[in-house]
Amino acid sequence: MISAPTHAEVETFFDFLRFPSISAKPEHADDLRDCAEWLTSLLASWGLEAAAHEIPGGAPVVLARTPAVPGAPRVLLYGHYDVQPVEPVEAWTSPPFEPEIRNGFIHARGATDNKGQTFSHLIGLARALAAGPLPVNLTVLLEGEEEIGSPRLGEFVRRHRDTLACDIALISDTSMIEPGWPALTLGLRGIACLEVTVHGPRADLHSGMFGGATPNPALALARILARMHGADGGITIPGVTQGVLPVAEDELASWRSLPWDAAWFEATTGLPAAAGERDRTVLERVWARPTAEINGLTSGHQGAGSKTIIPAAAHAKLSFRLAPGQDPDAVAAAVIAWFEAQFAAEGLRGVCVYDHGGLPFYTPPNDPFLAAARAALEDVFGRPPALTREGLSIPVAALLQRELGVPVVLAGLGLPDCNAHSPDESYPLAHLELGAQAFLRLTERFAAAPRAAAK
Amino acid sequence: MISAPTHAEVETFFDFLRFPSISAKPEHADDLRDCAEWLTSLLASWGLEAAAHEIPGGAPVVLARTPAVPGAPRVLLYGHYDVQPVEPVEAWTSPPFEPEIRNGFIHARGATDNKGQTFSHLIGLARALAAGPLPVNLTVLLEGEEEIGSPRLGEFVRRHRDTLACDIALISDTSMIEPGWPALTLGLRGIACLEVTVHGPRADLHSGMFGGATPNPALALARILARMHGADGGITIPGVTQGVLPVAEDELASWRSLPWDAAWFEATTGLPAAAGERDRTVLERVWARPTAEINGLTSGHQGAGSKTIIPAAAHAKLSFRLAPGQDPDAVAAAVIAWFEAQFAAEGLRGVCVYDHGGLPFYTPPNDPFLAAARAALEDVFGRPPALTREGLSIPVAALLQRELGVPVVLAGLGLPDCNAHSPDESYPLAHLELGAQAFLRLTERFAAAPRAAAK
Repeated sequence: MISAPTHAEVETFFDFLRFPSISAKPEHADDLRDCAEWLTSLLASWGLEAAAHEIPGGAPVVLARTPAVPGAPRVLLYGHYDVQPVEPVEAWTSPPFEPEIRNGFIHARGATDNKGQTFSHLIGLARALAAGPLPVNLTVLLEGEEEIGSPRLGEFVRRHRDTLACDIALISDTSMIEPGWPALTLGLRGIACLEVTVHGPRADLHSGMFGGATPNPALALARILARMHGADGGITIPGVTQGVLPVAEDELASWRSLPWDAAWFEATTGLPAAAGERDRTVLERVWARPTAEINGLTSGHQGAGSKTIIPAAAHAKLSFRLAPGQDPDAVAAAVIAWFEAQFAAEGLRGVCVYDHGGLPFYTPPNDPFLAAARAALEDVFGRPPALTREGLSIPVAALLQRELGVPVVLAGLGLPDCNAHSPDESYPLAHLELGAQAFLRLTERFAAAPRAAAK
Repeated sequence: MISAPTHAEVETFFDFLRFPSISAKPEHADDLRDCAEWLTSLLASWGLEAAAHEIPGGAPVVLARTPAVPGAPRVLLYGHYDVQPVEPVEAWTSPPFEPEIRNGFIHARGATDNKGQTFSHLIGLARALAAGPLPVNLTVLLEGEEEIGSPRLGEFVRRHRDTLACDIALISDTSMIEPGWPALTLGLRGIACLEVTVHGPRADLHSGMFGGATPNPALALARILARMHGADGGITIPGVTQGVLPVAEDELASWRSLPWDAAWFEATTGLPAAAGERDRTVLERVWARPTAEINGLTSGHQGAGSKTIIPAAAHAKLSFRLAPGQDPDAVAAAVIAWFEAQFAAEGLRGVCVYDHGGLPFYTPPNDPFLAAARAALEDVFGRPPALTREGLSIPVAALLQRELGVPVVLAGLGLPDCNAHSPDESYPLAHLELGAQAFLRLTERFAAAPRAAAK
């Protein structure tokens, strides 16, 4: 067994990391295209039939298939080659697109999310193909718009449903518990993002000439936002907690054995885990309950010093995380209706706009392919994976589950402290190797799964 | 009687308006100095003993005295030559520092606030001196930092108390009721400006990974700000309404005859005058009651699109208008104590900082110099002035009253729709003339006031 990635494998990975493939910034459109073409050439060089599909207005989707193995199960490997913006760039120890190894960790934007996790599988794939046919029929789907919410992937998947048809989908874009302790992620939260504006006077007004009589939209916004939660920490907006799938007792019990307790949250964030519903555990609140969060506030004077105005308007950016069982569009409609009633109660005009949503995800652990994934991860790490969830949103998981009608295995290779989305993002060099081995064991175990299930 | 300003008078006024004397912008320091020197030369050319006093770190103060008239009362005329910034400059019909007459109105930054009102008096002064000795001993005090809160004027007044000693101070920096209807402003509100920060996690956090357990400082800030007012519209912060001088019944009654009713406020602002204490009239709320206003909100993501974070901090800029009888420092201390208790109640660190304050002002109308001013304005406008207040803050009024121990006459020459502090600021050409005549009648009536009082 190979115990470390080769120099050539690491060098190729570094080439991947050097593309500044930031999907949120239109000026990087060419970098995304270059990265997609580079991936396509790489996969073709290993013997896959590969193409970069141009998407009008978006980044190309790379689609590749291994040579057909009649009778073998069909596995879809999903990853994304786009990355988050790098700001604040001055907070990085080394430049974000000049990968550097320090203390066994590869540092670069995308190192873990998602180039590193994806490339670990690709190393396994290249090694397997060099040795002979795969035990499965593999389709590789590499997207370039995950970090902006995969706005065009749904249509692509529906148009290419025949090509993408499979028995099991595999995604590594989540987190292990800690080094050496793998995880299978059974659930993810969905999301609904909205923007609220409360309108006040026609223009900023002199707070001396009008203050005391003229309503202040920033005060009204504060009052409205303060009403989103009750004294018990729960969300008061009708409909926002509707449809939540309750968490099974044994799942709740297994979460108690994980190291992510209130003390871990406090050590990581610097704050007590005191928000949300007081009668639920921290992990239930973060993994399986909806939230109503303010992501941004903007009103009136922003710079230094004072400017004594009644602002013309006040804005809030909101995001609602949704538990499995919930529908983003329905929650957004409930939020909009509630805000419209609040604007009326404050006697001011306002508008609440739905920006975008993403489906929550849940896969029951009793599927034979899930069992195969558990066994494969135990093979590699010497320890059975924890069955976890995550509180974040990966809409593609629900998309593949729904559109392709297959179980989705979320076998994360990242670590909780890999700084995904933050400066100094990193990925353990060892995980390149472990991920490559995991790919080999996963495909072997998937190949055996239908037979095991039939027994 | 001269019925219009001469061409030369208007040209000189235009020269005054052409100085971009914006005190809030350090890059205009030289323009402020040039403007002060220009004023000094002008006053000297009329026979005054004049000097521009350099103020370390600030704009010069112009101080000038007319030739001594033994036995005549001493009048201090205050004005300011600095102006507000001009942004948004694209909203101006003509460039803000290229004065232009349209439909009988002079358009320029400072046209009304305060170059126009001040220069009206100076025209009267120049005409009077050309005709012979004044009936009073006049000291002219022209400041260049009023629009940034007169931060150095208090010390200047204390250092020059002997030079500034007078029997009556005259300021024209307020508003008439409407064309032809003058006003004497008996009261002004004070102000206390503060800035509040609620601290959350060490850095912006992923709202998916932590949302539901980790407290959101923007939500906490909204809750705190929502508690500043009660259901009756009054301020709930203990101490913030303390010390307010009640308004005499006859003053309240006289306000009811003014055109500034709820309908006027609604027409001017586009909003019902629905804020503040429901059981008080609009003018009482705006002129004689304290306010707690949000001037700005800043937290988390500000740009386009969504960024799903729990922000590291949330900030609010606040201003409290204070009624006569109140002390800004005491109110600021009460506000800070209240916010500290709110931070603790939210379980988050926070800080509330006092930026600056300004004293409220009230002058009783039964002073002989006030009576003289009423008669003088009636002489010029053919109608007795309304006895009003204003809701804004002119700290220099209280400063002169307190430091010099004299009544302060606020005889405004502006109009409510002159766009002070806004684009397309204007001043009626006719008010240059009426103001010049008012100066002549005011000095004549002031000269007679002690005798009238002695009768």
